[in-house]
Order: sequence, then C-alpha cells, then structure tokens
Amino acid sequence: MSNLDSAFSALSDSTRRAILARLALGEASVMELAKPFAMTQPAVSRHLKVLESAGLIVRRAEGTRRPCRLAKPGVAAIDAWLEMLRGALEKNYDRLDAVLAETKAEIKS
Amino acid sequence: MSNLDSAFSALSDSTRRAILARLALGEASVMELAKPFAMTQPAVSRHLKVLESAGLIVRRAEGTRRPCRLAKPGVAAIDAWLEMLRGALEKNYDRLDAVLAETKAEIKS
Repeated sequence: MSNLDSAFSALSDSTRRAILARLALGEASVMELAKPFAMTQPAVSRHLKVLESAGLIVRRAEGTRRPCRLAKPGVAAIDAWLEMLRGALEKNYDRLDAVLAETKAEIKS
Repeated sequence: MSNLDSAFSALSDSTRRAILARLALGEASVMELAKPFAMTQPAVSRHLKVLESAGLIVRRAEGTRRPCRLAKPGVAAIDAWLEMLRGALEKNYDRLDAVLAETKAEIKS
C-alpha cells in the first residue's frame, strides 16, 4: 500500500477521525484519548497504530508516557493531493462565472 | 457508513484517485476513462460505482453516453474536514515561530 492508500484508508473510520480532531487541539496521551471516547486503552492503541503507520500521527517517549501528535508531512501529503481536485472545481466554477457574465452582458446589450 | 467514511475509503485506492485526477481535467465517459488505464470498461465501471456512491462523482445521461464529472459537494466535504487538521498544524507552527522569535530577541538583548 502506498502512503496515500494507507492515509485515506485510516481516515475512513469515524473514531480515528475523532482522535485526529482531538489531536488537532494539541498533543495527548493514550489515556487522555481514551477518556472522551468511552473506549478501552487497547482499543485506542490499535487505532493509534493504524494512524501512526499511515503517517498521520507521531509518538514520542516521555518517561513512561508516549504522547501523540499530528504528523505534518502525512497531513500535508493528503492535502496536496486534494488541492488538485479543489483547483479543478474552482476552475470549473470560474468558467461558469465567465459564461454567466458573458450571457448577462449579451442580454444587456 | 457515513459519507465521510465512504469518501475516504473510496480515495484509498490509487486507481480511483487516478480516475479523479483525470476527471479534474474535465468530464469523461467510461470509454475515455478506461483507455489510459489499460482496464476493461466493466472494471472502470465498478470503480465509478464506488466513487458515485461515495458522492465524489456524478453521472449524467447524454443519449447512450453517461459522462462522469467531479461532485463538488463530496469533494468540499472532505476538504472541510481536512481544513480542521490543516488549521491545527498552522497554529502549532505559528506558536513555534513565536517561541523562536522570542528566543532570538532574548539572545540579542
């Protein structure tokens, strides 16, 4: 699986998206992540492993804690891919705007 | 499955991402999509069904042709979700910039 494959696949689960939304507020430990989700720590750990191997989060050792945070390169990679679709849609709308403006100009003249 | 679940899941396949990249250039028929991928039309059709039910493309009838194009609401939905992560990462970098600027100011004074 390419990085984008595993990144998008990791994002297809609502619990993992909720974990990322929590990490968007700042670094958190497994225990802190487990609390709002009413999930066991092993269940959260399994989701974190998926997110980590997809390159969406990184973990660091801090004594016995292993706090997680968002991984900028992983998020940037999916964002860069999406940018291409976004650009295409904006271009189509610009074209539509141009057609509408032309039509209006023709009606007026 | 929520819409975001199925949208991200659809994006986890590199062929489907390539199809979307082609549609970013403009509307295309199944036949036009099948050509560059060296895939059979039924194989492309299966991918298109996944993309359509995930809300990422729409198809319209034009005689016997059913050209596909990107679906703005579907792309906008995943983009809006990603915006939250993007914003978080930018904020963290701004904070880091502020800390670095402060440190430099202290070194100078």
